[in-house]
Amino acid sequence: MSGTNGSQAGRQQPAEGETLATLGEFGLIAALRERLPSNADVLLGPGDDAAVVAAADGRVVATTDMLVEGRHFRRDWSEPYDVGRKAAAQNLADVAAMGAVPTALLVSFGAPGDLPASWALSFADGLRDECAVVGASVAGGDVVSSGLVVISITALGTLAGRPPVTRSGARPGDVVAVCGRLGWSAAGLAVLGRGFRSPRVVVEAHRRPEPPYDAGPEAAALGASALIDVSDGLLADLGHIAEASGVRIDVDSRTMEVAEPLQAVAAAIGADPLAFVLTGGEDHALVATFGPDVLLPEHWRVIGKVHAAAAEPTADSTAHAGDHPATGEESVRGEMSGTGEAPLVTVDGGAYAGPAGHDHFR
Amino acid sequence: MSGTNGSQAGRQQPAEGETLATLGEFGLIAALRERLPSNADVLLGPGDDAAVVAAADGRVVATTDMLVEGRHFRRDWSEPYDVGRKAAAQNLADVAAMGAVPTALLVSFGAPGDLPASWALSFADGLRDECAVVGASVAGGDVVSSGLVVISITALGTLAGRPPVTRSGARPGDVVAVCGRLGWSAAGLAVLGRGFRSPRVVVEAHRRPEPPYDAGPEAAALGASALIDVSDGLLADLGHIAEASGVRIDVDSRTMEVAEPLQAVAAAIGADPLAFVLTGGEDHALVATFGPDVLLPEHWRVIGKVHAAAAEPTADSTAHAGDHPATGEESVRGEMSGTGEAPLVTVDGGAYAGPAGHDHFR
Repeated sequence: MSGTNGSQAGRQQPAEGETLATLGEFGLIAALRERLPSNADVLLGPGDDAAVVAAADGRVVATTDMLVEGRHFRRDWSEPYDVGRKAAAQNLADVAAMGAVPTALLVSFGAPGDLPASWALSFADGLRDECAVVGASVAGGDVVSSGLVVISITALGTLAGRPPVTRSGARPGDVVAVCGRLGWSAAGLAVLGRGFRSPRVVVEAHRRPEPPYDAGPEAAALGASALIDVSDGLLADLGHIAEASGVRIDVDSRTMEVAEPLQAVAAAIGADPLAFVLTGGEDHALVATFGPDVLLPEHWRVIGKVHAAAAEPTADSTAHAGDHPATGEESVRGEMSGTGEAPLVTVDGGAYAGPAGHDHFR
Repeated sequence: MSGTNGSQAGRQQPAEGETLATLGEFGLIAALRERLPSNADVLLGPGDDAAVVAAADGRVVATTDMLVEGRHFRRDWSEPYDVGRKAAAQNLADVAAMGAVPTALLVSFGAPGDLPASWALSFADGLRDECAVVGASVAGGDVVSSGLVVISITALGTLAGRPPVTRSGARPGDVVAVCGRLGWSAAGLAVLGRGFRSPRVVVEAHRRPEPPYDAGPEAAALGASALIDVSDGLLADLGHIAEASGVRIDVDSRTMEVAEPLQAVAAAIGADPLAFVLTGGEDHALVATFGPDVLLPEHWRVIGKVHAAAAEPTADSTAHAGDHPATGEESVRGEMSGTGEAPLVTVDGGAYAGPAGHDHFR
């Protein structure tokens, strides 16, 4: 681990009332660069036509995500610092989910001219501090004018000579194991959506996920056969593994830890706490499949098993559940696998009767 | 050069009336992936948490740009295919402007659910065909729901063992040379902004720039001391080189080729055709500085000279002119260097009296 520490103290703040329009594009870029130190993997940092980033083993892992205000975050629900941490986290977690170590981010930032300059700079602080957790840094970016705040992040990473751990390697007989929190962000979203701000611990989890980054390369070193980060929800993301690997996966609900704050939220709003754990997204836990004989460290909890794909279809369809939109907006939820097919992911041997998966455009 | 050819014939088109909402997120992703073949540099393509791209010499060149509907393109002025080509081109040109060869793009695409599916797919065709010009391909991406069409592209590339050619290496005595068109896109924008559609050749140049990609690695091999692509306008981008290198640059207006269509547009609208050439952006010509003894191929035209930074400040300020917004929107234009300083870039030995540079937020 390298990079800056997470302290927010002592940083220069923009003048009261300063906006992107008064600061100007070049003033903003200068202020952002001042806050975003480069680590050793950034061979040429911001300020030229492109950055140059180390890719020591001759390959680079690369992933991109876009976040749109009102869809993926709300300025009245999340502080800009937390939006920065979350935006970085979801991309860094995608790198970890290949078994790789993140090295650098590229960040495009679109915003209206009347956005307070402090918002953009606190957002950058969040990016920097989340990068510092894994020793990465911001290598470059773009700032443009846009009616809404739009953030697009590309994360780069290194596999350090190992093959990538894809979604397609799960084999019948493998165990399914998870590292990290499940359902906390969804519980926080449920609380915020009802106008509350507590339990604070789940609201914080929604605002600032804590992906177990190191568990990605660790899973690769342990010989994981498949790996994904839980962004859409456990069952939905296991569905991605099952589909890519041509297998079925069964989750044992008795192994699910339903933490006390999730039980409290569920009791308060009349929900099933297990639904948070099975279908809640955005915590960016890592879930992997391993051969049955692999000795797993304690922070990897075995939660299910991989089976051969069903020979005959049943009447049930898989409930690939997700809970992606961070804003509580209602949307018609489509199903991620056709009806009439055998479920790819089951809970305790049967189809899960939760909400179907989220589709961004429906 | 590798990849698909530029033909648009024979591709499957979406059903009449199909929108992103009716196609759905996963339907859209499947349709996009079908249209976007991967080249050999993409070791692991779309469909996992991240892509893996070759970076043979242990480094990767990376750059990102965001395009927002209404700011950088208008759906009523540009076909989606052209928006795709232009979006790819401006990022691929940034890679070339480091002296590198592009290998892959990552593309984030935000759009409203009522966007015709054909728009997104034609956009993807444009991306693919522009990538094919340089042998690159789309390695991954993200699609999200957004009130406006927002496109963010990251381009990756390889330096093939050479050092990057930055903006900071220009030295007094060097010559300044340009490869590619200047002012054509600005002339096209001027035409479109007045409600006309001809001369078609400049409108086409605005919709679909043709950066001289190969000239980037060529300039590096010729020993260019500095290199940039002309995205903000010749004087503005030479200003970036002058500032980063700590030098002055003088442009000889007699060397400027003002092509016939630019003269025609200027005559029709009562403008100075030289202003298009000196301040028009988005053609993505490459401009470089070379030692005085370098023998340049004919497609590099010498247009000026690098001088030592001025010892004493003058009353003139540099006209770092730009013409970036592709939509003709009016904006208050800020200056890119302070008044009262010696101009970093001069034309025929004096400050250029054109419009000052564009600032995205002012």
